Amino acid sequence: MQSENRTTLETYLAERKAIIDAALEWFLPGVEDGPEIIHQAVRHSLFAGGKRLRPILCVAAAEAVGGNGQDFLFCACALEMIHTYSLIHDDLPAMDNDDYRRGMPTSHRVFGEGIAILAGDALLTEAFRLLSSPEFTRDDNTEKRLQVINLIARAAGTAGMVGGQVMDLQGEGKTVALETLKDTHRRKTGAMLTVSVVSGAILAGATAAQTAVLSRYGQDIGLAFQIADDILNVTGDSDLMGKGTGSDISRGKTTFPALMGLEASRNRLTELVERATAHLSGFDHRAEPLRWIAKYVMERNR
Amino acid sequence: MQSENRTTLETYLAERKAIIDAALEWFLPGVEDGPEIIHQAVRHSLFAGGKRLRPILCVAAAEAVGGNGQDFLFCACALEMIHTYSLIHDDLPAMDNDDYRRGMPTSHRVFGEGIAILAGDALLTEAFRLLSSPEFTRDDNTEKRLQVINLIARAAGTAGMVGGQVMDLQGEGKTVALETLKDTHRRKTGAMLTVSVVSGAILAGATAAQTAVLSRYGQDIGLAFQIADDILNVTGDSDLMGKGTGSDISRGKTTFPALMGLEASRNRLTELVERATAHLSGFDHRAEPLRWIAKYVMERNR
Repeated sequence: MQSENRTTLETYLAERKAIIDAALEWFLPGVEDGPEIIHQAVRHSLFAGGKRLRPILCVAAAEAVGGNGQDFLFCACALEMIHTYSLIHDDLPAMDNDDYRRGMPTSHRVFGEGIAILAGDALLTEAFRLLSSPEFTRDDNTEKRLQVINLIARAAGTAGMVGGQVMDLQGEGKTVALETLKDTHRRKTGAMLTVSVVSGAILAGATAAQTAVLSRYGQDIGLAFQIADDILNVTGDSDLMGKGTGSDISRGKTTFPALMGLEASRNRLTELVERATAHLSGFDHRAEPLRWIAKYVMERNR
Repeated sequence: MQSENRTTLETYLAERKAIIDAALEWFLPGVEDGPEIIHQAVRHSLFAGGKRLRPILCVAAAEAVGGNGQDFLFCACALEMIHTYSLIHDDLPAMDNDDYRRGMPTSHRVFGEGIAILAGDALLTEAFRLLSSPEFTRDDNTEKRLQVINLIARAAGTAGMVGGQVMDLQGEGKTVALETLKDTHRRKTGAMLTVSVVSGAILAGATAAQTAVLSRYGQDIGLAFQIADDILNVTGDSDLMGKGTGSDISRGKTTFPALMGLEASRNRLTELVERATAHLSGFDHRAEPLRWIAKYVMERNR
């Protein structure tokens, strides 16, 4: 990427992240709602320096089909809450047993396992509270919002993210086949990345054809994201990643580089990003951020 | 209660439980959706002999305002899924560390902690999938369904059930004041029992006045239920309860009998059930099951 484009991308991502962070703060339940420690635990993980990729995708997809991104921040933030819940639970001793994430101690290290489990439960629940909030009810959007809640719940449930985490747990210490690895990631990260794009598009009034194309874009960058993550886990800078590199290998997790080799993994990543961008050929300049994000997935270093 | 009434109540509860059980089986995601073990874990806890009080309340409230209970089984089952998720997570070693519930080994004892956490996560997520399912979308019900999703998420979140569980965790080994104990239970069990009544009523087209009265009924039987539970924990038959009696005391949890004495707790229970029933004075014979359930809460022995 040329340096001018990189600056545009970095500016875009930084601006969007700032908007999402402010919206998350706004949408979180007030500290008067329930015991203080649960709000501290929720905030510890929610404001731990996440990239906000899912909410940015949601808003960018809404804008690509002509919507006003600001109208859909409630959905964008709900997606980030669900993502954060999944990280808190994945880091637990009974799962990946991670002490650090993005350079910060994980929730159970700070608050204990009980509160960490409940902080995840709270974030998942608050996401659906936000998605159904009467504050965003308009005469003509209730059916679309029910549809989006349903798609997000499917992506987060046994057919999607929860199912992927189960497969991940079951695969530890085993070498799994490439198709199983792809299926695990399609569920564990791909489903939520895809529904982030799709939900923004649907809420903004995308046609069925636009939604279908954007769903394929989401699936391709979802898999690309995971391959890039695996490559970074082998080659990345552990200071930038905020966790030890090589941790997948030490935990006995199968990765794309382990199965395909590093070179083939890089080629596959490039192909997926090119294909994701090609899906957007029927969209105008308003889809430019989605094209930037595809490049970002390929070129990110953490 | 006279033996004739008891037979009517027992027949009613048994019939309703059978209908709810069949509906739960119908609404659960198919085993083709995701790894087999997560479905086994979900079913292990969901079909472990629960009383189905929340779904029965939902259907009974819908019928009390003139609805057809069958139309609202999807909501009733979602409430039971959320209740079951909360039991799985509450039983975890990091929370109450219970090995048995209703005489069956708890989820983490059978499937391990990681899968138990994920089975809870799956049930919470599937509940919202069911509540938003397009299968139940009618021209005139989308706004009511969004409203019900929002109320259920509030009742299950930090202001409700999750907040109550946090207070419960924090209260262990301490003697808490009566107001704190009531607040804990209002959140931990009261909020979900109340929203079970309210959601059935709203979906069936209750007026705002009817919903307000039924909400008060729900709050009163919610607190009554918890006082009865505490009394049973002191005096109950551990074979019938399926868990050791006296377990609250050994865990250092404050109970109503500990704070008020057994006699005063029994009197308070009777008062609450009488008040709950009095709330229903403006309803006709279709609210009879809600009256039976109030008596059941007072007289149940497990």
